[in-house]
Amino acid sequence: MKMHFLTSDLPHSIAELPEHVGETVTVGGWVHTHRRLGGIEFLVVRDGYAVVQVLLQNGPPRFTNETVLLVTGKVIAETRAPGGVELHDPVIQVLSHVDEPLPLSLIRPVDQAALATRLDYAPLALRHPETRRWFRVTDHLLATFRDAIRRREFVEVHTPKIIRHASEGGANVFQLDYFGRPAYLAQSPQFYKQIMVGVFGRVFEVGPAFRAEPHDTVRHLNEYTSLDVELGFIQDHRTVMALCQQVLAEMLDRPPQGWTGPWATMPSNPPVISFRQALDLLTAATGEDLRNETDLAPSHERWLGEWARRTHSSDFLFVEGYPAVKRPFYTHPDPEWPAYTRSFDLLFRGQELVTGGQRLHRYHDYLQALRVRGMDPDDFIAYLMAFRFGMPPHGGFAIGLERLVARLAGFSNVRQATLFPRDLSRLAP
Amino acid sequence: MKMHFLTSDLPHSIAELPEHVGETVTVGGWVHTHRRLGGIEFLVVRDGYAVVQVLLQNGPPRFTNETVLLVTGKVIAETRAPGGVELHDPVIQVLSHVDEPLPLSLIRPVDQAALATRLDYAPLALRHPETRRWFRVTDHLLATFRDAIRRREFVEVHTPKIIRHASEGGANVFQLDYFGRPAYLAQSPQFYKQIMVGVFGRVFEVGPAFRAEPHDTVRHLNEYTSLDVELGFIQDHRTVMALCQQVLAEMLDRPPQGWTGPWATMPSNPPVISFRQALDLLTAATGEDLRNETDLAPSHERWLGEWARRTHSSDFLFVEGYPAVKRPFYTHPDPEWPAYTRSFDLLFRGQELVTGGQRLHRYHDYLQALRVRGMDPDDFIAYLMAFRFGMPPHGGFAIGLERLVARLAGFSNVRQATLFPRDLSRLAP
Repeated sequence: MKMHFLTSDLPHSIAELPEHVGETVTVGGWVHTHRRLGGIEFLVVRDGYAVVQVLLQNGPPRFTNETVLLVTGKVIAETRAPGGVELHDPVIQVLSHVDEPLPLSLIRPVDQAALATRLDYAPLALRHPETRRWFRVTDHLLATFRDAIRRREFVEVHTPKIIRHASEGGANVFQLDYFGRPAYLAQSPQFYKQIMVGVFGRVFEVGPAFRAEPHDTVRHLNEYTSLDVELGFIQDHRTVMALCQQVLAEMLDRPPQGWTGPWATMPSNPPVISFRQALDLLTAATGEDLRNETDLAPSHERWLGEWARRTHSSDFLFVEGYPAVKRPFYTHPDPEWPAYTRSFDLLFRGQELVTGGQRLHRYHDYLQALRVRGMDPDDFIAYLMAFRFGMPPHGGFAIGLERLVARLAGFSNVRQATLFPRDLSRLAP
Repeated sequence: MKMHFLTSDLPHSIAELPEHVGETVTVGGWVHTHRRLGGIEFLVVRDGYAVVQVLLQNGPPRFTNETVLLVTGKVIAETRAPGGVELHDPVIQVLSHVDEPLPLSLIRPVDQAALATRLDYAPLALRHPETRRWFRVTDHLLATFRDAIRRREFVEVHTPKIIRHASEGGANVFQLDYFGRPAYLAQSPQFYKQIMVGVFGRVFEVGPAFRAEPHDTVRHLNEYTSLDVELGFIQDHRTVMALCQQVLAEMLDRPPQGWTGPWATMPSNPPVISFRQALDLLTAATGEDLRNETDLAPSHERWLGEWARRTHSSDFLFVEGYPAVKRPFYTHPDPEWPAYTRSFDLLFRGQELVTGGQRLHRYHDYLQALRVRGMDPDDFIAYLMAFRFGMPPHGGFAIGLERLVARLAGFSNVRQATLFPRDLSRLAP
């Protein structure tokens, strides 16, 4: 048997056509639209990457939009055409007919207001060039994330999403039936990535995280993609913040090839303020005494984002030293101010993008931390085993992939950066 | 704030010490063992990558194994030492004490028979150099898979693992409680990756797959990592097989740096037989008439694996053209033999590693295929939308990551290639 691929079997990519001017090639794609310019009929054909104009000579054939075609034609340079080329003298073969008009337009600008409809029709709506291009950004950020983290010798792991205990605090977990026993969906790979620091020292995971949060907001998803990083032998959470800064700087270093549109860069020295400084700033700005708050409200984060932009010309702002009462039991306290922690959030344009920090690493500290919170160490036997048998000072962070893309794009709703979002009401498509 | 990483904050990697001969460096790691050679005491320290001997001058300090240390010392070339260097004149700082002896040895060869114990103690057992090195192979294969598939312009997607319908046939799905409604865990990203071919033409996904199969075998996991690929504008399943061959050839092209141990290569022309040829071979070999079988039993796959090795010197064997009755409804029939399909399995050393094929791509073919199987098209509205609005001939495949590593290693049980396996009885660690 002859094994060949990308030679004779598959059509050319439309994006490559400028390299084939003068040649006769075959492309495969969808009828994006018809266009009539100066008495000439064009068929605009779209593949996964780009569109090309096909010059029609014998009057327009009547293809419904999204009909799937193979078009063989001669590549002609034409500066006025999208992509700088056209296909002439086409021979067209229909691969799949479409029998009905589209329920939404893939030509007109995306109607940002009609999000619910676009999500209902996602298999079609995602084909809109304006929509799908942001998922190429997602793809690009996944690739650059892995490049950045692998260059630093982190090992990729995949840890279980089905877990025995609703572990990280108990609330907001999905329960499932595991052969007649209750089990839960992991809210994060937190425990496993820590355990794996004991094995490899530096690990990362890209995978789904499940949160049964019963609120419908523009920034929450019940299933999202988490970019998780954890490493050992750190000094404190500042080592983790420095890594986080570098990884995001490399991820955002350049947009995907040919990109036009909004982008952001991570400064080499992003501003860092403490949680208490943040409250002082907010108190001064609002006139309201916020100094006893234990967390930042979304409106506070927005204000801090604007402050960072105004005073430091930065889209990013690290806030460190959150109160222990609002952080999980494994968070390392600040030795000098034990009510506060060696933790941080990274705000991107006024919204939490990353959460991270140093974790406890001594077995007895874990026993104590669980006891203080009224949690039962027996529910954490496997996790605690890592600490019984020696763990270094360690920490890590997690980036919410959809949030990153949504903020980059300026989307008002994180669902716009999610292929098939899961929320309180949405289980399909 | 100064952002620095991998400069002053973190200890040196032990693997890098040969580049620092003559320098004084700090490494961080675990007490792997004590060693006494010719009256000299050594401490062997292990980090995530390697081990190094530390020469002790003032008698051995009594560290329990797995105690976590920072060791500052001078790097001395020593050809007889593991890695070719030793640390002399050490200054040792204990980061975490270990108070108890280990319940299993990280020094003696791995006891392959004691798998259940090793899985129970996974947070510790995974630190064994013989065990963890196979998870570096996993990491390597993930990286080379993505390199191979990205080079061919596939776009990475993450699709929902929580789904509304127990879709791909109905059986063997985990059910969960989604805000009071039933929902299910995805057995594969099959429907979504097909939908995404309509958007990008070529997509891939690396993620968990969940199978509620109620049998405990050495080759099944209830949660595993699937490397999924799907592409449009193919000729037939042979285009998919050719891509699969190329991707695996590149994944296996070279082992991780410094690797010693079993490996495999994908031939440039692996043998391909039809399902019916496979039955003929088995019938001739066993004397039993197997020509009316509709699937291959594990023992048959083993025999075929040996046959491929014997007659083609190949660890891999493609079997194509499985009976329609054993393949899912979306499988494209063979137009000449409609009881058979344009599908394939790839056997690796006599075990199914990859399943793939061409899918139906026309809307009416889907309606017909569902009707024939007594399935309700209303359960597939979003999936069918892709076909209503135009899909090219397409197909794809999925590689089971843990199976690949298990076969490569020669493990008798796929759990040996799984960090924290999920099976009928095992929900933790």
